[in-house]
Amino acid sequence: MPTIKDVARAAGVSIATVSYVLNNKTGMVSETTREHVLEVAQRLGYRPNINARNLQASRTGLIGYAWHKAPGGEPSPVLDQFIYHLAHAAEQQDYHVLTFTHPGDNPIRVYEDLIRSRRVDGFVLAETETNDPRVRFLIDENFPFVTFGRTANDWEYCWVDTDGRDGAKQAVEHLIQQGHERIGFLGWSYAALTGDDRLQGYLEAMENAGLPVDKDYIARTDYKTETIESVLAQWKPHNLTAAFVVSDYDAISLMRGLERNKMPPMAVVGFDDAPVSKFTRPGLTTLRQPLREISTALIKMLHERIQNKDCIPQNKLFKPELIIRESSLIPPNAPAPR
Amino acid sequence: MPTIKDVARAAGVSIATVSYVLNNKTGMVSETTREHVLEVAQRLGYRPNINARNLQASRTGLIGYAWHKAPGGEPSPVLDQFIYHLAHAAEQQDYHVLTFTHPGDNPIRVYEDLIRSRRVDGFVLAETETNDPRVRFLIDENFPFVTFGRTANDWEYCWVDTDGRDGAKQAVEHLIQQGHERIGFLGWSYAALTGDDRLQGYLEAMENAGLPVDKDYIARTDYKTETIESVLAQWKPHNLTAAFVVSDYDAISLMRGLERNKMPPMAVVGFDDAPVSKFTRPGLTTLRQPLREISTALIKMLHERIQNKDCIPQNKLFKPELIIRESSLIPPNAPAPR
Repeated sequence: MPTIKDVARAAGVSIATVSYVLNNKTGMVSETTREHVLEVAQRLGYRPNINARNLQASRTGLIGYAWHKAPGGEPSPVLDQFIYHLAHAAEQQDYHVLTFTHPGDNPIRVYEDLIRSRRVDGFVLAETETNDPRVRFLIDENFPFVTFGRTANDWEYCWVDTDGRDGAKQAVEHLIQQGHERIGFLGWSYAALTGDDRLQGYLEAMENAGLPVDKDYIARTDYKTETIESVLAQWKPHNLTAAFVVSDYDAISLMRGLERNKMPPMAVVGFDDAPVSKFTRPGLTTLRQPLREISTALIKMLHERIQNKDCIPQNKLFKPELIIRESSLIPPNAPAPR
Repeated sequence: MPTIKDVARAAGVSIATVSYVLNNKTGMVSETTREHVLEVAQRLGYRPNINARNLQASRTGLIGYAWHKAPGGEPSPVLDQFIYHLAHAAEQQDYHVLTFTHPGDNPIRVYEDLIRSRRVDGFVLAETETNDPRVRFLIDENFPFVTFGRTANDWEYCWVDTDGRDGAKQAVEHLIQQGHERIGFLGWSYAALTGDDRLQGYLEAMENAGLPVDKDYIARTDYKTETIESVLAQWKPHNLTAAFVVSDYDAISLMRGLERNKMPPMAVVGFDDAPVSKFTRPGLTTLRQPLREISTALIKMLHERIQNKDCIPQNKLFKPELIIRESSLIPPNAPAPR
């Protein structure tokens, strides 16, 4: 790898002269020398040392992104795709993505270390929680960051999110169009704005169509066999014929639970368009998040924030797209399997 | 963020003195001053600027990893999990992972740019191909790198791989134990060492058991409906009762193809233990790659390479683990669905 020294030696000039030329300081060297040095630098394949350049500019050109949950936990099909789009969007703005892992119990320390050691210019956070301590910490530090997802409070910071309320409305309206009237909502057992938002959309669509919602229609699960069994027991007296489910994995669990119990199939819509959705039988109708657009918006916001730490926080919601496969086309009067 | 200047000002000493103390240059300052400066630095929360430190050490502390194929192409369930383990293993050795994307037609340019701009200390490559041009380029550059997977030639470089031959043998021996004798092999349509290796394992296991292999037993696919149809046509006259398939997605396609054509189910073993394998009906028997161990070995090799560019290239094979679910337990005489 040629250094500035090598260029100076090959060009027969001082290191200072090479430095003047490469840093575009005009008036210090003659035009002939300038051209000669540039030609030699190019011939040798010289590139400036990014570390040196960043030191000058106080810029690392890196954006930190914490790798999501460890494998073996819940699968994160959407985030796997998200990080690809994020890396790609970052490169369009001349950044690279530094991925890191952090322990579940105290993520703050890792963020703090990366800031203190000036490793990154900013962060992108995903899997945000209600009152997320990482968000609180980064607001207090006034360090540039953006989040994919919200934290369910009135903190002011930059976020981009999928409009889960709109997605739920699309799903339920689609089920109503197929002739369904008794439609269940299957959400997560833990409190998250993402889930609440989707519940709101479900309730709105039902209300707009003049369909009553018994409190038992709203069930909670975590795609474990046992909880699905109790969901089915909760729904049984109501003869529900369709359900909107907040994630594809939970939707698949529901379909399997019905089959296992030899109950009539329900029309089902999931959320995420996980790769698995194409492989289920029947293929799963679901809502796809526009991850490319979300990533581009996040990087744009973050870049502005890095340029000016005091710019006004922006927020943006993207509508998901309903992908219709077979699972939602099951009619209200489908017979139970023998 | 306090700088070395802030520490000097608060401690009432020169910047040079702070620098001597922080860089552990003994004999330049008194013990009293040293303790005073360290105390002030700690109180202010001073951390060294990593860019400055790396410039000194000519080390970036970053390992480059090209994000695998864009979403929408073939899913890469194993690589999604691999990058998590890689980031984690890197952190144990005080590196972070810089992820980047590259165009399919000429990946070299991106690697070249990252080297020339001294962005990374080394690379981890995955999805290696026969005569992979990235591997050739990095060998020629003598730039530190390791690969997860091999390139099917006699180039000398550091690689770690899963022993696909051993995995295929495990799979076929398991099928033979279930009473199967006419066992097919379903591989990729393109040439890759990974596929050839698994074919060898299949052939060995069949030979060891004294079972004949007709050339028609060996079929090629790319989990598209059309190619599965021609595979089934190729196998039909041979009444195969079981198959070893080189990937989980292809295994699922095979099972669906049999069902679609109302043919008797076959006992099937896939490869990868993709998240989808738990969700199929029947659950898919498959081979799981030890990604944590593979990542640790890769980072260890790469670190040694970064420390000493001329160390002897090492190679390591890890045996996969057979995960038995229901798909391989289908008996040789299973009836066709009505």
